[in-house]
Amino acid sequence: MRDVAVVGVGINKFGELWNHSLRDLYVEAALAAIDNAGVDHLDSMTIGCMTSGLFVGQEHLGSLLADYLGQKNLAASRVESACASGGLAFRNAYIEVASGMSDIVMAGGVEKMTDISGDGATYALAAAADQEYEVFHGATFPGLYALMAVAHMEKYGTTREMLSAVAVKNHHNGAMNPYAQYPFEVTRETVESSVMVASPLRILDCSPITDGAAAVILTTVDIAKKLGKPIIKVIGSGHATDAIALHSRDDITTLNATTEAAAQAFKMAGKTIKDVDFAEVHDCFTIAEIVVMESLGLYPPGKAGEAVVKGETALEGSFPINTSGGLKSKGHPVGATGVAQIVELVKQLRGEAENGRQLTNSPKIGMAQNMGGSGGSTLVHILEVA
Amino acid sequence: MRDVAVVGVGINKFGELWNHSLRDLYVEAALAAIDNAGVDHLDSMTIGCMTSGLFVGQEHLGSLLADYLGQKNLAASRVESACASGGLAFRNAYIEVASGMSDIVMAGGVEKMTDISGDGATYALAAAADQEYEVFHGATFPGLYALMAVAHMEKYGTTREMLSAVAVKNHHNGAMNPYAQYPFEVTRETVESSVMVASPLRILDCSPITDGAAAVILTTVDIAKKLGKPIIKVIGSGHATDAIALHSRDDITTLNATTEAAAQAFKMAGKTIKDVDFAEVHDCFTIAEIVVMESLGLYPPGKAGEAVVKGETALEGSFPINTSGGLKSKGHPVGATGVAQIVELVKQLRGEAENGRQLTNSPKIGMAQNMGGSGGSTLVHILEVA
Repeated sequence: MRDVAVVGVGINKFGELWNHSLRDLYVEAALAAIDNAGVDHLDSMTIGCMTSGLFVGQEHLGSLLADYLGQKNLAASRVESACASGGLAFRNAYIEVASGMSDIVMAGGVEKMTDISGDGATYALAAAADQEYEVFHGATFPGLYALMAVAHMEKYGTTREMLSAVAVKNHHNGAMNPYAQYPFEVTRETVESSVMVASPLRILDCSPITDGAAAVILTTVDIAKKLGKPIIKVIGSGHATDAIALHSRDDITTLNATTEAAAQAFKMAGKTIKDVDFAEVHDCFTIAEIVVMESLGLYPPGKAGEAVVKGETALEGSFPINTSGGLKSKGHPVGATGVAQIVELVKQLRGEAENGRQLTNSPKIGMAQNMGGSGGSTLVHILEVA
Repeated sequence: MRDVAVVGVGINKFGELWNHSLRDLYVEAALAAIDNAGVDHLDSMTIGCMTSGLFVGQEHLGSLLADYLGQKNLAASRVESACASGGLAFRNAYIEVASGMSDIVMAGGVEKMTDISGDGATYALAAAADQEYEVFHGATFPGLYALMAVAHMEKYGTTREMLSAVAVKNHHNGAMNPYAQYPFEVTRETVESSVMVASPLRILDCSPITDGAAAVILTTVDIAKKLGKPIIKVIGSGHATDAIALHSRDDITTLNATTEAAAQAFKMAGKTIKDVDFAEVHDCFTIAEIVVMESLGLYPPGKAGEAVVKGETALEGSFPINTSGGLKSKGHPVGATGVAQIVELVKQLRGEAENGRQLTNSPKIGMAQNMGGSGGSTLVHILEVA
């Protein structure tokens, strides 16, 4: 397999973008990535999107978006793994370049979530859970993560303060991200007085409903050198699933698919978690960031929450997490999120993160963890600057 | 890239399967393919499905179906390219094995279409067209293909008899397929007196609404030899898109994505259409089979219809098409169709086609053409028996 590098990134300012359709969002991010890479063509394109069918009545995004991007006859496809669709698009693009099948591939992600009315977004997102055995019985995503939070609190003594610390940190970082949906600080008090969604999760424990897209360009390291771009190599890729329904898992205080996908990525990279300098992780809810940190092996079970409170994962901490603001502050257009994480890794590894959130210790290795549903699927990628 | 072979196939009896859920259908076909291949594990699984979100409110099929298949932690993903989702799953699985990323990969496809009520199926299928510029203005899929049929009749003198001949031939073949939804003969008279759907297309010009799944196992040629299986090699793969909306194309009497995908597959295989012995093509409507035959270069523009009437594409003809019965008689569970086509190619190349529809001239090379929407995306694969 050939060595692969990311040579271009593009992203929208996330938000409730009433004046932009799904195709507008995607084309904007895709053109930005092409411009950033300086490539003159694409060999193929893979698009992560969770459920454009339910959100806007549109499938067949490969044809639609190649068409609107002006890429006649392009081999363009759509992949789906719920909220991990973007990470899956990145992996498929990586495999396609590594295999020798294509030389220059775009991995994009998009979701247009605000055109649906009433409780439509809750119904659409619930399609990531087990429709027949969870959703029909009343489960929603905040409800499922609330169950995980309660179990984690019960088993390990995780506290309200720890959950709040995740939100406070991510909003602090996101306030420096010009592409974030909610680029403002929140305090512990604000989080803890915000409206209850599913106990113990309050609205400021939850990532928002977001319109947005992100895109990156992958190519061989050889072509990347010719383009004169910084060499940001993909050194590890992992992909695993778990039982889709929480009730089918032995332990809901950990995420097996995350542990397994990370193990695959570390094995491929020949690295351990100690070699990684920073990470973007899937903080769809504050409790998720804590459980993911433990499932990645960054902290022992029950110890991650305390580390967040101590600032160990802050920008200036020993292992910064979600320098972009994470899903919490940057926003969570579900199909785009996994690609947006890669955009942040590349910016940090290039030294191009905006407005004071650039890590100052010249990070060399970054990791992205992107998961679908309540952890039923996970993609992990490791990038290294040459 | 490594040489890849198909070593196992599985399929349901297609139909209106009220007692089977999406997961039931998939697991049945997947277990049949595993059994047929004789493999003891899978390294990954890629699933083609067009719109389980709209049909049954369920996305995240990678997690769901790995879970219900008892494949804990399997790297399982879902891909979508409307009615070409199955072909796309096959291509992605092919690339994954060829690349060296995985050794044994299942490509599956599934659609559960009959659980939706009222005009839901028409709405769900229309998600393959341009929702904003075609569907909002009243277009349906029979309507779009009817426009293509009228244009083809006007330009080339294609006749009602020629359309009917496609239906008669495919039902003749499907009557010998124990997995077909409608395994019975139809006459020209029956077709031409059936109810009008969108002039000139009558109900017996249209493929049906179908529940079903299909699965195949791909591995390296080296592993295939160890398994003691017939070596059915994947020698060509092509993938292309076209403008999603008919009104954006220069000529609606041809299918550019089919021509382009076939050219890619032929180039990779080092073959031409003259080297191919038989094909499964995407006859979602009778007119589609005629236009596809021309777009593949099998007949000059305007000449395919006459060839069908003459029997050149019948089982005993010079170039048999849709020996399985095609989408018309076998059924069209949209996400499964592209994989079901591969199942038929493998059966014919192995000499295992049931009930008298086995080609008797020892075919060596078969081709599958699977398209999405009104031809906005197309996958072409060429298989050769070693």
